Amino acid sequence: MSGNTFGRRFQLTTFGESHGPALGGIVDGCPAGLELNEEIIQRELEKRKPGQNPAGTPRKEPDQVKLLSGVFDGKTTGTPIGFQIINTAQRPNDYDRLRNVYRPGHADYTYQTKFGYRDHRGGGRASARETVSRIVGGAVAGQLLKTQGITVLAYTLEIGGIEAEIISPEKACEQPYFTPDPSVIELWNQKIEKIKEKGDSIGGVVEIQARGVQPGLGEPVFDKLDARLAYALMGVGAVKAVEIGAGLESAELTGSQNNDPISRDGFTRNNAGGILGGISSGQIITARATVKPIPSIFLSQKTLNTEGQEVSLQIKGRHDVSAIPRIVPVLKSMVQLTLADMYLLNQGSRL
Amino acid sequence: MSGNTFGRRFQLTTFGESHGPALGGIVDGCPAGLELNEEIIQRELEKRKPGQNPAGTPRKEPDQVKLLSGVFDGKTTGTPIGFQIINTAQRPNDYDRLRNVYRPGHADYTYQTKFGYRDHRGGGRASARETVSRIVGGAVAGQLLKTQGITVLAYTLEIGGIEAEIISPEKACEQPYFTPDPSVIELWNQKIEKIKEKGDSIGGVVEIQARGVQPGLGEPVFDKLDARLAYALMGVGAVKAVEIGAGLESAELTGSQNNDPISRDGFTRNNAGGILGGISSGQIITARATVKPIPSIFLSQKTLNTEGQEVSLQIKGRHDVSAIPRIVPVLKSMVQLTLADMYLLNQGSRL
Amino acid sequence: MSGNTFGRRFQLTTFGESHGPALGGIVDGCPAGLELNEEIIQRELEKRKPGQNPAGTPRKEPDQVKLLSGVFDGKTTGTPIGFQIINTAQRPNDYDRLRNVYRPGHADYTYQTKFGYRDHRGGGRASARETVSRIVGGAVAGQLLKTQGITVLAYTLEIGGIEAEIISPEKACEQPYFTPDPSVIELWNQKIEKIKEKGDSIGGVVEIQARGVQPGLGEPVFDKLDARLAYALMGVGAVKAVEIGAGLESAELTGSQNNDPISRDGFTRNNAGGILGGISSGQIITARATVKPIPSIFLSQKTLNTEGQEVSLQIKGRHDVSAIPRIVPVLKSMVQLTLADMYLLNQGSRL
Amino acid sequence: MSGNTFGRRFQLTTFGESHGPALGGIVDGCPAGLELNEEIIQRELEKRKPGQNPAGTPRKEPDQVKLLSGVFDGKTTGTPIGFQIINTAQRPNDYDRLRNVYRPGHADYTYQTKFGYRDHRGGGRASARETVSRIVGGAVAGQLLKTQGITVLAYTLEIGGIEAEIISPEKACEQPYFTPDPSVIELWNQKIEKIKEKGDSIGGVVEIQARGVQPGLGEPVFDKLDARLAYALMGVGAVKAVEIGAGLESAELTGSQNNDPISRDGFTRNNAGGILGGISSGQIITARATVKPIPSIFLSQKTLNTEGQEVSLQIKGRHDVSAIPRIVPVLKSMVQLTLADMYLLNQGSRL
Repeated sequence: MSGNTFGRRFQLTTFGESHGPALGGIVDGCPAGLELNEEIIQRELEKRKPGQNPAGTPRKEPDQVKLLSGVFDGKTTGTPIGFQIINTAQRPNDYDRLRNVYRPGHADYTYQTKFGYRDHRGGGRASARETVSRIVGGAVAGQLLKTQGITVLAYTLEIGGIEAEIISPEKACEQPYFTPDPSVIELWNQKIEKIKEKGDSIGGVVEIQARGVQPGLGEPVFDKLDARLAYALMGVGAVKAVEIGAGLESAELTGSQNNDPISRDGFTRNNAGGILGGISSGQIITARATVKPIPSIFLSQKTLNTEGQEVSLQIKGRHDVSAIPRIVPVLKSMVQLTLADMYLLNQGSRL
Repeated sequence: MSGNTFGRRFQLTTFGESHGPALGGIVDGCPAGLELNEEIIQRELEKRKPGQNPAGTPRKEPDQVKLLSGVFDGKTTGTPIGFQIINTAQRPNDYDRLRNVYRPGHADYTYQTKFGYRDHRGGGRASARETVSRIVGGAVAGQLLKTQGITVLAYTLEIGGIEAEIISPEKACEQPYFTPDPSVIELWNQKIEKIKEKGDSIGGVVEIQARGVQPGLGEPVFDKLDARLAYALMGVGAVKAVEIGAGLESAELTGSQNNDPISRDGFTRNNAGGILGGISSGQIITARATVKPIPSIFLSQKTLNTEGQEVSLQIKGRHDVSAIPRIVPVLKSMVQLTLADMYLLNQGSRL
Repeated sequence: MSGNTFGRRFQLTTFGESHGPALGGIVDGCPAGLELNEEIIQRELEKRKPGQNPAGTPRKEPDQVKLLSGVFDGKTTGTPIGFQIINTAQRPNDYDRLRNVYRPGHADYTYQTKFGYRDHRGGGRASARETVSRIVGGAVAGQLLKTQGITVLAYTLEIGGIEAEIISPEKACEQPYFTPDPSVIELWNQKIEKIKEKGDSIGGVVEIQARGVQPGLGEPVFDKLDARLAYALMGVGAVKAVEIGAGLESAELTGSQNNDPISRDGFTRNNAGGILGGISSGQIITARATVKPIPSIFLSQKTLNTEGQEVSLQIKGRHDVSAIPRIVPVLKSMVQLTLADMYLLNQGSRL
Repeated sequence: MSGNTFGRRFQLTTFGESHGPALGGIVDGCPAGLELNEEIIQRELEKRKPGQNPAGTPRKEPDQVKLLSGVFDGKTTGTPIGFQIINTAQRPNDYDRLRNVYRPGHADYTYQTKFGYRDHRGGGRASARETVSRIVGGAVAGQLLKTQGITVLAYTLEIGGIEAEIISPEKACEQPYFTPDPSVIELWNQKIEKIKEKGDSIGGVVEIQARGVQPGLGEPVFDKLDARLAYALMGVGAVKAVEIGAGLESAELTGSQNNDPISRDGFTRNNAGGILGGISSGQIITARATVKPIPSIFLSQKTLNTEGQEVSLQIKGRHDVSAIPRIVPVLKSMVQLTLADMYLLNQGSRL
């Protein structure tokens, strides 16, 4: 209830600030008997690491996960899985200049106003670094889903207005920018270099697919599968829009264009994005998230300090130019967590 | 947890099928001492009634709410507010033809698959009629929010590709189609008549504003205010996309264009839609929902019957051409419910 | 979360005051496909009716339940089951004298202090009449449990210090006072008549057994089955103590006396009350609830009025002398609700 | 929902096995601005340490808590407080003999049956060692409560049938056995030595008082304060009964004896244990927990091995003779956690 727990049956609770001693969390509700591969979790974490393409910062951030409980002889025991990632690259003093100023587009002002007090170092709890715990949880969920034949893919559809085609989404996880379309890499590199030179930043669009989802996941009326996915994805910092299936385009279609006909071989179209009445239909589930440009830019910005005075802010240091591609495994994790939860909630839905 | 409860502190739990004896619900967690005006609730319900413009069906649906508890001498007592709306226009036999067929774009197939059993009459629980209970809950929430100076507006931005300008959103609640731009009414009438003649249907876009929201609502990290709004809106049948603030457009902006500068007089732009780091900033909160065309069309459609045979389906009877405008008060209600909940959850966030 | 919902997967949410228009609730999470017998529900309700022995008031209280949703062709559909019991015997003016005084042992003072406002008529929400909704929920849960071979029995162990022996607990539901020992009826009659003459009231002890519970129900560490049972039973008004298995007596035993040995034929003793480490062991589950004497007595009592002045209160009207036996089906219902919930929560506990 | 989270607004989620690398947890929902004293937390942990009297094992168990997040410059920030206690005394091989046998009175059989798999080492998750995380959470809650003038005391009422008088409960925390009556220490020492010689174990009764609780805590109807306390206390391993106020004795009283009269100076008796209608009345809250004898005894016991064969079990190693006194700070913690949660839930109960 208090904001740091995701899910109801498969639950992830997280803690940790950008520059505190550690981040981590607890996965509760994972069924017993799952062979849990710690290396897969670590590998997912590394997909979030920067430095793999121009969009990332050269900062080194060795994220080593350690499982602390809930696994015995390689299998889950049904008890909570505690984990942590120690912060080795703490440089809290780098942020002293930001202690008394509200960075535009960041959570500085709202945290200060809500809590009357904030850990300003690197964004504290509001830092994107918080998402490492989501990835660990998602990687556990992903291994549970795999036992049910469910796979989740995530890939970049667009960066700074330049779109990719969905050519090979299955291979996107090994490509720069997690692109499903290698032909666009060079264009994205150029775009990002150009923006970087200007000291500005840029956003884009990420798509997530869930394959192999059996019909029946999702709980009407408020906990529809699409509602839970929207909640999961919009809860990731920088996401400003979530679409399911045809999404925004559905406003322009007529019913006869938009309805997916059903044949003996299944649905013959997928405008629904694999969800009807909030329940999975057995088709591929598709969702898209729009990612805003990173608010940390190197151009001068008008803002207030904590005394209420107007100041010009000039951010320094190391910052990504785009939240993409690092946000891609995070969004994938959120879909994995959602599906694992809805999978368990669906147990017992009928006699 | 079981799908029919919305919220954690201000909670709405609902029940009811399209053609059962009654629909209704329970509002739990409403603070004591609120002067609750039952007429305002009834008035909101009537905004959802059809027949006010060509998009609606001529069907008469007298929705009379009755409060059953939780109010004494005109004020809430802090105990649950039970309510019901009796279904007077039950014509379950009208739906006998649909008992054994899956209507495309509807929840028939997924309910049947999930539960092994469904009330097929008028969509049963998956009918849009379910939303009357949301409106009652929203109208209670709205009266609570009013005591805190918060007002929620909802209006139609687009129908079938024809956009309205946001000229007078405050007056939209009295306009046909809840339009903020009376100049577009005639165009929408024509568009809808044309679609109706073809036996097809159409969708659109609705925008919701919350004004007067104090800074501080929203619970990081998973229960960000925008995440809860996305969950609330995407949980309404027919919604396929949710945007906050600049939404989809933010993918095309640079950081310097997207960040909202802060001056002594407050923020000088509102791309954020009033939410930073998942917490309200004191600006107007804006969200948009994309509404798909209604799946009940009068054109012949290919589908399966419950025996698994391919059939051609020809839907008859009375059906709206567009979920807009009737969905508009529903979306407004969901935002009211969300804000009331986040308002209460914010109590005790600091000593 | 807001106090009027019980359970997490099998959820009962209730509403209603003693003298409002109706009481009722919503059962959410009941699996689809359960053949639900409305007469069984009604029959359980009638077990709570007064007038079946000297302990009850002669007041006539026809509690007729009506199901409003969630059932189609006699089977549950997986959607919420709304229900209501209309209050036909409303005599709110009978209570005008109690508007401005705090009855000792009742919730008058605490409701007034917490909510600043209360429905004083017959105790309002704090009236024992609230429990009719628990019985409806429990009777639905009971029918679900029956499909899993689980039966719940409840019987009176003691009234006013006079103990019954556990001779035929299975037949207690048809006996006066729900006694498992008909030899005690006459003694209880005499005791109650004597107390009634004095204008005083009396309490007792109720035991509940759950038979046929498979091993595995209960979620460590906080949601142990015994913890959930204690929560369920102590949440019934008038209950002041809850024991599991040997209960209070276990403080006097040594480990070798208290531990239940295990043989090939199962456990050879049941001090544990069928629960080990918070998880059902397959043995009969036993719990006991201590019920305080009813606070409404006809003797003069010292108390305060709402102005803060000391007054002598002389309660009039119709009141039970003991909450037993009417509380017995309520306690049974709470155990049924708990077990149904834990049964569903246990789904998915292992791969 | 999944059993390892306690509370709804002030939430403690825990993880950890007796012989895993670490135990720990996350406190979520603690208001910002609380000056959190880490030494107080450590001191509470040390009260649970063994070796302070004959009842404890001589085993050395250095429990050093480390806070990992949620505190900045000595004050809570409103974000989750992660913490861990590293297991330094892991001797998992000591338990190899217990891998394939079900110890009577322990959770071995039920964990195995529920999860199909268990960490047998020292009881795994079912070990009393799990309670270190409860104490950390309780010590945070206690510091929050202190800002509201609330103090929680816990003391031993009885060991092995020998009762203490409640002479100086305030000083019990510094006394052997947390006794409120130093005159009984020698008797308890003798009793325990005698039981220890026999290789047997023994139980007792603990009482908890909460002083300074304002009227209004507790949420009717299911989340009454007494219901939540019963849930909290019964969820601690070894507890078999929970009483509030007069508890079991109330079954023997008449209404006129049991009702607490109200005078201008407050209630003149406290049979209610400070709770009326599930809501705190402003009086001292009193609860009692009955603690069963520790199931690990050194006498030979009949049981089954995991192959289903009957065996004689002879437990060796280091074990307490009684869960008292080490359980006393745990029970205190559970009351602190409950009150902190109900305190926050009470925010917003009236306009």
